[in-house]
Amino acid sequence: MIEQSPLRIVSDAAAVPARVDHTGTLARLEGVTESRGLDDLTSRLAVLRNFVADDLAEVEAALGAVDASLDTPMHRAAMHLVDAGGKRLRPMCVALAARAGAGFDRNARDLAVAAELVHNATLLHDDVVDLGDLRRGVPTARVVYGNAASVYAGDWLLVEALRRIRVTGYVDLLDRALGVLQEMLDAEGLQLAFRGRGDATVDDWRRVVDGKTASLFRWALYAGGRAGGLDADRCDALERYGHALGVAFQLVDDVLDVSGDPGETGKALFTDLREGKLTYPLLLAMARDGGFAKLVAEAMRDEGGEVSAGTAQAVMAALHQTRSLEDSMAFARRLSEEAVASLATLPAGRAREALNSVAVAMLHRKK
Amino acid sequence: MIEQSPLRIVSDAAAVPARVDHTGTLARLEGVTESRGLDDLTSRLAVLRNFVADDLAEVEAALGAVDASLDTPMHRAAMHLVDAGGKRLRPMCVALAARAGAGFDRNARDLAVAAELVHNATLLHDDVVDLGDLRRGVPTARVVYGNAASVYAGDWLLVEALRRIRVTGYVDLLDRALGVLQEMLDAEGLQLAFRGRGDATVDDWRRVVDGKTASLFRWALYAGGRAGGLDADRCDALERYGHALGVAFQLVDDVLDVSGDPGETGKALFTDLREGKLTYPLLLAMARDGGFAKLVAEAMRDEGGEVSAGTAQAVMAALHQTRSLEDSMAFARRLSEEAVASLATLPAGRAREALNSVAVAMLHRKK
Repeated sequence: MIEQSPLRIVSDAAAVPARVDHTGTLARLEGVTESRGLDDLTSRLAVLRNFVADDLAEVEAALGAVDASLDTPMHRAAMHLVDAGGKRLRPMCVALAARAGAGFDRNARDLAVAAELVHNATLLHDDVVDLGDLRRGVPTARVVYGNAASVYAGDWLLVEALRRIRVTGYVDLLDRALGVLQEMLDAEGLQLAFRGRGDATVDDWRRVVDGKTASLFRWALYAGGRAGGLDADRCDALERYGHALGVAFQLVDDVLDVSGDPGETGKALFTDLREGKLTYPLLLAMARDGGFAKLVAEAMRDEGGEVSAGTAQAVMAALHQTRSLEDSMAFARRLSEEAVASLATLPAGRAREALNSVAVAMLHRKK
Repeated sequence: MIEQSPLRIVSDAAAVPARVDHTGTLARLEGVTESRGLDDLTSRLAVLRNFVADDLAEVEAALGAVDASLDTPMHRAAMHLVDAGGKRLRPMCVALAARAGAGFDRNARDLAVAAELVHNATLLHDDVVDLGDLRRGVPTARVVYGNAASVYAGDWLLVEALRRIRVTGYVDLLDRALGVLQEMLDAEGLQLAFRGRGDATVDDWRRVVDGKTASLFRWALYAGGRAGGLDADRCDALERYGHALGVAFQLVDDVLDVSGDPGETGKALFTDLREGKLTYPLLLAMARDGGFAKLVAEAMRDEGGEVSAGTAQAVMAALHQTRSLEDSMAFARRLSEEAVASLATLPAGRAREALNSVAVAMLHRKK
């Protein structure tokens, strides 16, 4: 599954294709799995695609209609990222969880939109913090509208998301959202503290990922279940599914950082490494090879945010030798299985099958 | 009331005295008014000070106990600003409004803390956006802990504030807080759009100030009234008071930017001008003197964020000639009177007297 791509550093933002429509991810996954002969998964994804197409179209329409009320660079910065598309995975999670219950109603749609807005708010601030230039295959809002506009734009989207959750009247979901936001920010704080330090461990990675990535997936699944009228046990099961899915998602993300195709991912290889963020495969390789750990620590200290060709080669060699990419994907597979297992208490049906497919397809994603 | 201080540019952050205790503002105001022979106001402020001392001590204890849960530069950045003190005007407003009703209970305290945390959250992001170096007489969080930590720290405080509002159970206050936050961010967007442009008007100024400054004062007063169990009419009256007080506060702030004592204000003269923010006195002078308007527009274009001695002199001369500082303060006085007038429907008593004193004292503040 992991192809060790030759090293390619994308330096020209404009060379990367722009925008994805909201069914793009599923279509692409179908393509990938088809080419690998995974016919069963391909047909399951085609079913999933039809199943949520209308719901995601509603979400997309609602996202497009977010009324920024004023037309300033800050407001344009907020909509720049939302309009740039993206995988819309979190809204899809809300929709599928809602459909595991009574269905995708207006509240479910608002919660799905809120999940995407929270995600976009954090991305805007992440790009300011990480000096990110490319996101979703287009120049970041901070490049187009500046850091100042992006900081306030992130705030604006966050508040807009909370307003939308509030409007649904599910006060418990608002409380959970505020809790999740604090977990996300605690994790951002941790990640910043670990930045550029060669002594972080896989346990540190897990703390960061639980908060930064998994918590919002958890919320999305739980929120969808609540909107679908599922009982507490089933909502909890969905939450567990979301957590496992979220960690698996980050593992694949980390693997793509060193072995993905920038034309697919929309960002340059070694972006995490350049930003001083230790990914799971790297931490694994560092734990298994003391010499490599020393090399990474030195590279982070000496190269000041750049990844030299020598370092890149050494990283790829160490990942290969320690089988860290394979083991990262094996971990992702275990989490995917955990996610699927937690669906057992849900009513059998198309929604459960679809959630099942998402957990499997997550392992095959290329972007 | 307006003293045209000789121009002084503070360049050494460390030279400015640090920290204020939470009763410092009132003590200082007493000192100022005493020296001016305003014996009546002095004695009223002494009464006010005793009246809210316990409430503000409770707020201060709660602010000191905000549990940042983790110890990272981001978490320290959040507490750096909170711990640096400040005027605590918004908590005082909540306390006084609550005491105009049934009193300052635990909910009122939580709302007062939330108002201060929202204020601090916006300051953290403002300092990142404005590249601010000095705040409350100490180096800003972004100088000590970096921009990245400050961005997430602002987010963290914002979420913490909303959690505290939510805990009080006043869902309407949460809705209003989210609305106020959006007004504040819309205004930040507007201010960014106007930044460095010489063609803004006093109407533009009013739109920015209504959203950026007055809306949180409005909320603080309304929230205090609600916590104190006042009826809707009286809460509305408090809200009007808060709005007028907030605009007056900003007017005095703007005047202090060109005529304050940096040793008192904790920030350098002409900070707003250097950051490309047009203040009310300047806009007034520009509207009254076309030549001066042209000079400001050129200075903003040519001086790239610096205020030369020549520009500073020209600004002071134009303000003097057009009587813009006097008229700005006259506007502040009218708003102060409006604020006081809106208290008429409140029950007579110490709280109303205290709110009255605050509106008058606002005009005399030096920091």
